[in-house]
Parts: sequence; structure tokens; C-alpha cells
Amino acid sequence: MLTRNVILTSRPAGIPQAEHFAVVEAELPGLDQGQVLVRNRYLSVDPAMRGWVSAEANYATPVGIGEVMRASAAGEVIESRDERLPVGTRVIGSFGWREHAVVDASSIERIITTSDLPLSAYLGVLGMTGATAWFGLLSVGQPQVGDTVVVSTAAGAVGSVVGQLAKLAGCRTVGITGGPVKVGLCRDEFGYDAAVDYKADSFIADLTAACPGGVDVYYDNTAGAISDAVHTLVNRNARIVICGTASVASWIPVPAGLRMERLMLTKSARMQGFTVMDFQDRLPEAYRRLEALVRSGQLRYREEFLDGIESAPDAIAGLYRGENLGRRLIRLHD
Amino acid sequence: MLTRNVILTSRPAGIPQAEHFAVVEAELPGLDQGQVLVRNRYLSVDPAMRGWVSAEANYATPVGIGEVMRASAAGEVIESRDERLPVGTRVIGSFGWREHAVVDASSIERIITTSDLPLSAYLGVLGMTGATAWFGLLSVGQPQVGDTVVVSTAAGAVGSVVGQLAKLAGCRTVGITGGPVKVGLCRDEFGYDAAVDYKADSFIADLTAACPGGVDVYYDNTAGAISDAVHTLVNRNARIVICGTASVASWIPVPAGLRMERLMLTKSARMQGFTVMDFQDRLPEAYRRLEALVRSGQLRYREEFLDGIESAPDAIAGLYRGENLGRRLIRLHD
Repeated sequence: MLTRNVILTSRPAGIPQAEHFAVVEAELPGLDQGQVLVRNRYLSVDPAMRGWVSAEANYATPVGIGEVMRASAAGEVIESRDERLPVGTRVIGSFGWREHAVVDASSIERIITTSDLPLSAYLGVLGMTGATAWFGLLSVGQPQVGDTVVVSTAAGAVGSVVGQLAKLAGCRTVGITGGPVKVGLCRDEFGYDAAVDYKADSFIADLTAACPGGVDVYYDNTAGAISDAVHTLVNRNARIVICGTASVASWIPVPAGLRMERLMLTKSARMQGFTVMDFQDRLPEAYRRLEALVRSGQLRYREEFLDGIESAPDAIAGLYRGENLGRRLIRLHD
Repeated sequence: MLTRNVILTSRPAGIPQAEHFAVVEAELPGLDQGQVLVRNRYLSVDPAMRGWVSAEANYATPVGIGEVMRASAAGEVIESRDERLPVGTRVIGSFGWREHAVVDASSIERIITTSDLPLSAYLGVLGMTGATAWFGLLSVGQPQVGDTVVVSTAAGAVGSVVGQLAKLAGCRTVGITGGPVKVGLCRDEFGYDAAVDYKADSFIADLTAACPGGVDVYYDNTAGAISDAVHTLVNRNARIVICGTASVASWIPVPAGLRMERLMLTKSARMQGFTVMDFQDRLPEAYRRLEALVRSGQLRYREEFLDGIESAPDAIAGLYRGENLGRRLIRLHD
């Protein structure tokens, strides 16, 4: 049986573009005992993918040239040689940018047994994205009632969850995002107390005005000039949570910035990086809580679908262009 | 009664020099009820004093021009109008760079009742200096058995205590210091497993060789190029404890350095500033433990005395010149 995969064809310097990938046909292998054939319904598009294809030191071994692009996916078992995963089982795993994946049953990351929530959400607010927001804010950022929490890429898949969780935790929430449409989304859809546009000439004045009591927690998805502006406003015992560096195109060489030591010292501040896998053992706890919040309507999310595997190659670049207005997924089948 | 004080005469840009101070005579006021007259025996000389006379944002209100220099001191009550502090009581407090101080009894920070340990040590290893090492290493740095702990200004008053505490905690200790004499002190006196000279051309190679398993905790007293070298070696979950910035002459404007976000993210690392006053409630605990370690000979310290109040004005600059080989104190009387 023929299927289609997206492979990495060259290694980008900086943000991966459409030209670094190709959609290729491939013959599906037969199933060995203990394997299943998954028909993917949704493929993930993540900012972190930049790191996975980069030659720079990173979390994980880079995807090799000619290899299928690594990606989380949600799909359905359509052929099974493992009795625990009958045909029809809905599964999440690192299946890659493929229409179909033959995988070992042991490599399935989650089996989705709920049926009241959309499968796509398990690649976003109910999956790693939501868990990243959950642990980064609550375990690393440790917000207290009354804190001011500033979030960069505030309307994004992670940021929008962070903002809502911080609000639920009794904090004042200030979102930083790009352009008036996203500023509106932050205020109207995600409930931020204030939202500021980093592209506006008045950005620094707007941010300062939005944080009259300073900043206690900065959930940083961008680094760069946006972060420099937030750092000037941090309070004593501030926590700076490093979740992503979306505004920095390349880390080779490491770009110059302001030295942080004196600020950390005079404010007794903390800057801490993390990845969701630091909290792997506690993922079920986060998933349970996030499901409950989505069901009750206390946690909102947006999705944006690109249809067909042909849309994958340009999808990461589009994220970094800031064109998406919600969790970006490639939809292969509903 | 006439006495002598050291006053701040102008505000330094950068490191305070002798020219920024003057020794002046003053008439001692009489005692009100609840006050005592302290004859100072030792005056403190601290790297942090740079911040206290600076106009830059800092922990505390800066010392005013014409005011007596703020300083911790150890002395003896020689006249008392408070029954809790009879003549002969040995006391520690922020008495300033003065030969004598008339102070409210309520402003006395510690009464020293032990008699087997030298009074001067209560301004160093048994005082704020020791407590800074204690909390910075143990509470902020959180070393685990087997960690590699790197300390900058490793032979200094704080650094030498950090290195010894880390060794007691089961860590491999690597000291960074300036010049062969201090390298020798680190190894022979303070028990570092390795010590490297940041002034040597081979510094980066020496440091790398001294940390074959990478760096888990970096106790940073310097910032600057020394820290840049250490940062390249940090392990996953590294903790960078910001205690001082001795190598940076001025923070106006904030000097450029390498952006830290990607390193923090890919290593799930933490950088955290602190001051000992963050742990004010727990000072007695640290003092008790440090006394026990000094008594048992498990914790060694060096002191260096400058004699007479005339030696005070140049004493801070000397610290930053790196000329001292131990906790620097001004000795007025033994």
C-alpha cells in the first residue's frame, strides 16, 4: 500500500522553510506481531520543530536528512497485530509527518478513551501543549494569588493556556502578542486583563502601563527584545519561565543581550528553563485537570487546520511568521 | 568625647576608591535611655559595599554624601543605658565605619555569648558572610551528592566557605581564582578538588579539564567572562547561583553578554539571584551549624586585618584589586 511522508531534505540555518522538506510517496511495510497500522488524522506543527531539524545543541538528536519529519500525531488504528489495540482505537504518538504509520504498540504514547472531546484537542490543549503551559506556569512559575503574570506569544497555543490558567490562579494577566487581531483575541477570547502589541511603537509604554504593580511571573516564549522590555519591570522574587525563544532566528552564534546577573541579584529573581518532559511522570495529572477545565468551559482554545499533507512543508515557517490564530494542525481526515 | 568616622564624600562611578571617603573627627553624643555606646573592635569590608554607595538600583537606599559609611561591625558595650546590654557585652550590628557608635539597643543584631571563638569571625565565617555561603549553596544551589560545584572567587570570604560546604555535601569542588597563590590556597587550605587560575591563558582549557563531568552547580561571585566560560559546561538541571558580580566594574549601562534563554531551555537550567536577607528568619540555624563546623575543624577560614580606621577608605578598592587572601576586616582593637 502506498502512502505519503514528509521528509527533511536539507538542514535549515534558522527557521525551517518549505524548501527544506519534500512530500514523498512510500510503500507501507507489513505488520509484525506487536505492531499496528495507524491512519493519522492530525499532525502536529510545533515551534520546537525548529530545534529538531537544527544542527544546534538541543533537547534531542536532530532529524536526519532524508528521514521523515518527527511530529506528534493523532490517528486511529486501522490494522492491528496487538490485542491491546483493536482496530478503531484512537491513539497519540510520535508518528511523524506521515499519512500512515506502522508502529510498535509499545511506542503509542496515549490511548484516547474519552469521546466527548475532539481528537485534535489531544494534540493541543489536552496534550503536550496544554501540559507545557500547566507545568511551566504552575510548577516552574509558581504564581501566587495577586501576582502579575506576563505571557509572550500570549495568543499562541501554549500562551493562551498559560494566560487562562494564571487568571484561574487569581493573577492579573498581561498578554504580549503581535497585531491588533491577536490583541483582541487575548482580551476577548482568552480573558487577559490587558494585552499589548509588541509591533506597536508604543510597546514599551503600553507594557509598562499594563503592569502598574510590576511583573511577578514572566512566561517567556520569545526571548529577544520583548523579553528585554519585560525584564525591566520585574519585581523582587520574580520568576522568569523560559519556555521558548520564538523571536530569535538563530542561536549560532549566540546573540548578544544584556547581562542578567545584576538584575537576578538585586531582585532575588529566578530564571528557569524547562521542557514538558521534565514532568513526564506527572503528565496524567495535568491531562486530567486540563480535560476537566475544557469540559467545564473554564479553559478555551482555538485550533487552525491546514488541510492535506502537502501543507506540512511550509507550516513551521508560517508559525514563525505569526500567521496562525490558534493551535496549528495539519488535518488529513476529520 | 571625640571619635573618628569614615564618611562618603562623593559618589563613585564603579568601584569605590579611597578618594570617595574621608576620615573625620566627630563628637560622640550622650546616651539616651535605651541606648548603648559601642567601642568597635572590627569593621567589615564587603564587596557589596560597592552597591551601597552606588546610585544604581540596588538592595538598599544608598549611603548619602556626607554620611558615615554603612558597615557591619563587632564591638563591645562600654557604656549602657539598657539593662539587657551591660558593659562588656560583645555585639554585632550595622554600626558603620566608626571607632565608636551610640546606638539604640533595639538595633543590635547579635549578642555574642560564646567565648571560645574569635569575635572577628562573627563578621565572617560565623556571620553574614558564612550565612551567605550557607543559604546560597544549600538552599538556592541545592547540591546533590556527586554533583560538580564550581565556585568563582573561590578563595574569597564567601567562596572559600561555599567550596568547603560543597565538599562536605559530597560534591566535587572546582574553584576559580586569580593567580597561583590563591590557586594554592584553594587546593591546600580549602580542600577544592581542583582550582584554576582565570588569569592564565589556558583558563578555559584548565576549567574544562577540571570538570570532566560538566557543571551541576555554579556559585557565581563574578559574572563576566569567567561566568561565560562556566556556562558552556553546565549540565541538565544545572543551578547557577548569582551571589555577586565582582568582575563587572559598572552596570550603567548594563554590559552586553550572551543571551541565556536557549541555554536555560535546552538544559532545563535555573539561574537565581539571592541575598542573605532572603533567609533572615533562618539565620540562627545557619549560625549554629557554622559554629559547630568551625569548632570541629571541618570548616576553615582566613582573615586579613587592616589596622586602624585610616585603612578603611582604600579597603573596598583593594578587595576588587583582589589583593586580600582572606576575609578582610579593619581592626581597631584586638
